[in-house]
Amino acid sequence: MARKAPIVVASNRGPVAFARAPDGSIEQRRGVGGLVTAVGGALRGRDAAWVAAAFTNEDREQAARGRFTFDVGGATVRVRLAALDEKLYDAYYNEFSNRILWFLHHYLWETPRAPEPGPAEGAAWDAYETVNERFAELIADEAPEGATAMPQDYHLSLVPGVLRAHRPDLRIGTFWHIPFCQPDQYRVLPDVWGAALLRGMLCADAIGFQTQRWADNFTACCREVLGATVKGKHVSIDGRSARVGVYPVGVDVDLLRSQAGQPEVEEAAKRIDALVGDRTMLLRVDRTELSKNILRGFIAYERLLERRSDLHGRIVHLALLTPSRRAIPEYQEYMRACRARADQINERFSTPDWQPLILDESDDFPATLAAYRRYDILIVNPVFDGMNLVAREGPVINERDGTLILSRNAGAAAELHPALLVNPFDADGTADAIERALGLSERERQERAHALKELAPGVPPGDWLGRQIKDVTRRRGT
Amino acid sequence: MARKAPIVVASNRGPVAFARAPDGSIEQRRGVGGLVTAVGGALRGRDAAWVAAAFTNEDREQAARGRFTFDVGGATVRVRLAALDEKLYDAYYNEFSNRILWFLHHYLWETPRAPEPGPAEGAAWDAYETVNERFAELIADEAPEGATAMPQDYHLSLVPGVLRAHRPDLRIGTFWHIPFCQPDQYRVLPDVWGAALLRGMLCADAIGFQTQRWADNFTACCREVLGATVKGKHVSIDGRSARVGVYPVGVDVDLLRSQAGQPEVEEAAKRIDALVGDRTMLLRVDRTELSKNILRGFIAYERLLERRSDLHGRIVHLALLTPSRRAIPEYQEYMRACRARADQINERFSTPDWQPLILDESDDFPATLAAYRRYDILIVNPVFDGMNLVAREGPVINERDGTLILSRNAGAAAELHPALLVNPFDADGTADAIERALGLSERERQERAHALKELAPGVPPGDWLGRQIKDVTRRRGT
Repeated sequence: MARKAPIVVASNRGPVAFARAPDGSIEQRRGVGGLVTAVGGALRGRDAAWVAAAFTNEDREQAARGRFTFDVGGATVRVRLAALDEKLYDAYYNEFSNRILWFLHHYLWETPRAPEPGPAEGAAWDAYETVNERFAELIADEAPEGATAMPQDYHLSLVPGVLRAHRPDLRIGTFWHIPFCQPDQYRVLPDVWGAALLRGMLCADAIGFQTQRWADNFTACCREVLGATVKGKHVSIDGRSARVGVYPVGVDVDLLRSQAGQPEVEEAAKRIDALVGDRTMLLRVDRTELSKNILRGFIAYERLLERRSDLHGRIVHLALLTPSRRAIPEYQEYMRACRARADQINERFSTPDWQPLILDESDDFPATLAAYRRYDILIVNPVFDGMNLVAREGPVINERDGTLILSRNAGAAAELHPALLVNPFDADGTADAIERALGLSERERQERAHALKELAPGVPPGDWLGRQIKDVTRRRGT
Repeated sequence: MARKAPIVVASNRGPVAFARAPDGSIEQRRGVGGLVTAVGGALRGRDAAWVAAAFTNEDREQAARGRFTFDVGGATVRVRLAALDEKLYDAYYNEFSNRILWFLHHYLWETPRAPEPGPAEGAAWDAYETVNERFAELIADEAPEGATAMPQDYHLSLVPGVLRAHRPDLRIGTFWHIPFCQPDQYRVLPDVWGAALLRGMLCADAIGFQTQRWADNFTACCREVLGATVKGKHVSIDGRSARVGVYPVGVDVDLLRSQAGQPEVEEAAKRIDALVGDRTMLLRVDRTELSKNILRGFIAYERLLERRSDLHGRIVHLALLTPSRRAIPEYQEYMRACRARADQINERFSTPDWQPLILDESDDFPATLAAYRRYDILIVNPVFDGMNLVAREGPVINERDGTLILSRNAGAAAELHPALLVNPFDADGTADAIERALGLSERERQERAHALKELAPGVPPGDWLGRQIKDVTRRRGT
């Protein structure tokens, strides 16, 4: 059974989405994102299924028709969509997963005031439980005797617990893509939720994290919140034990390089050249997300320009931002502050032939790839980040021996030693790092860039899930 | 040397303050607060000095005259005041100690935006260093060969380091009165500051905390931030080792009881009786401080009134608040939010003969003591708190077998098991605890109150410092 066990992957977003075509028919659209590629590689030659949420009307129509097969990176996979009505999905996804859990693990709350869980949050928790149960049912439905279930990420923390109760024959491995916080922070959650989430995860045979730091924080929470026993990699409670492992996600180098060579990218490259010319290019590529620390990045750039008038006219900061979570008030307010700061910097330092900061929220992927090729310095300074794939993608694509400035609180910092690591809360220290990058000798810059190019890809995505499957299937549940 | 070593205590606020009397002469005023009583008891029969900051004009005049003697709880103590000009004091005390360090260790920042250390904070750090050096000089000046120096609290973290370099003959013990945060939070500080503060503290022979939890957080920071070696209670770095200990501060029961019997307290008790009548009295006594979680306390009370209309007219929430740190914008804004919430509750639930919440910011100590005697339920729900003495004082004075609702994030929670412990971030859970307190059987209520009265005093204040002195003096520096 160990070698090629049947697999059921589950994740909020699936490998395929449905949309209404102009002619009224329903089109399939391939899901984007690293997970789809990663999973495809690991599923080839197996009995494989994937359970995901149906959250558009077209998805729901498809969900009503039951399972269907889909090609995921060369693997034929049975797909099952969980039909979730809009209100339920909103409460489970936006309210509970992305507001409560995301804020918690990225330390985004202003703790004297928020969170302030009330009836709306209570309802969000109920929705989260309901959706997790629904996922568990569909997984159970798709899983042959002795299969391995792989529920993904913080949206599905309760799935291992529900599944364990109904299907003791399954092996269960779960992976947590975001950071995991320390106990003082974790216990900000209402106790009933905090305990239920940990207990749910601990019903898996194996629990994976992006880096050792998040794994350590998780085991500390299990010990302090639940009183679980931690021995090496094993966390035990209620007569069961789960193995905690580290599986850093890498990027698909071949795919990225082929995308970066497309004609649209060449076009975008020309537009960027026209903007930047032969100036030094400082690049940021992020979702418009509180955890990405865009504001302190801009402040660091402003401090650099204050200190170094010799750089005026000779450097351009290009910030390519992809809109994200625009419905959440904290995000709207944060982006207003980011835009105001960008305007302030431009008002303060611009000259007739130089705009120091270009803020672009147009979500243009070819432009991103062109900018990756062209940057001299890439700044990735999240306050906290599970891994951060920009820090991998940039160096893989870059053609100018560019320097990476990287937050030590990104999971990627554990691997990408040739980057200049920064404390993301310290805007002055971040300005220091930009100055340092600008002042590197040609030789040191090249050495760092070459070493980074070697390390940046990380574990090939196909192997990433494959290793987890191996660790889960070789382990007997206790 | 071990038995009655000479002692030099140092703290920001000293045992005596000076003020201009109406006739133009300078008056001595006895410092209030537990530390003075605590220290007095431990200093009797010793050669003893106390170094503190001079921060009023009258203090500075006195500082210029050099040392003087003062009676501290029956001990004759040489007092030296460090003359600090207003701007220096403001930067060291308000900006660095109370904004940066206090916010850090109580988890008060909204981390996506703050802190944002810039030139003002850089200057505050310089001032903090300067004042710490000044304290160390005066301690060295007052300390006979082989004396024990006891710098107190987060204002003076760098003193052990400066002192160790200049006076290797001294024993040094420092005590941290506030919480100590976990490493993910600690590393929000700019690295240079974070490392310097820990290294400074580790130059002491012994470092004391209010409870094991803060001691554990401190040693975790030493390990993760500095790479120090932790073995049991000993933290080693740079060929030296410091012993980390737990010394919970208690209250002076005799003093409190004698204060509570004063005529002004009887007068205040009559006024409170007139307000509250025979209704159930829910009491809060706090400084107007972000960490005290006043807002969530009010929200919990509001939720209680929503759930339980049978309580309308039968319960009064008295909130006695002492103004604190009114110059800090975050505090002004927070208090505005607290007052608005209180008004909202009163507007929503008041009847012609019932005001559900009485918010009193008049800073009236006799009224506080009278309220301690009278409460049925005392709520103490800080988000984080080093110890919290209200949780001890209330039960010592209370005459009605009142119930204590206590945040599990207050140091006092480690000792006061008969309290109903709450998660301070969970307003609903706090409302549950009030309901539970209201519903306790007569017998359980009495049992809890009696057990609490036994535990609430804690270690007598005189013994508190005495134990630390004993631990410091019996240990040879390495």
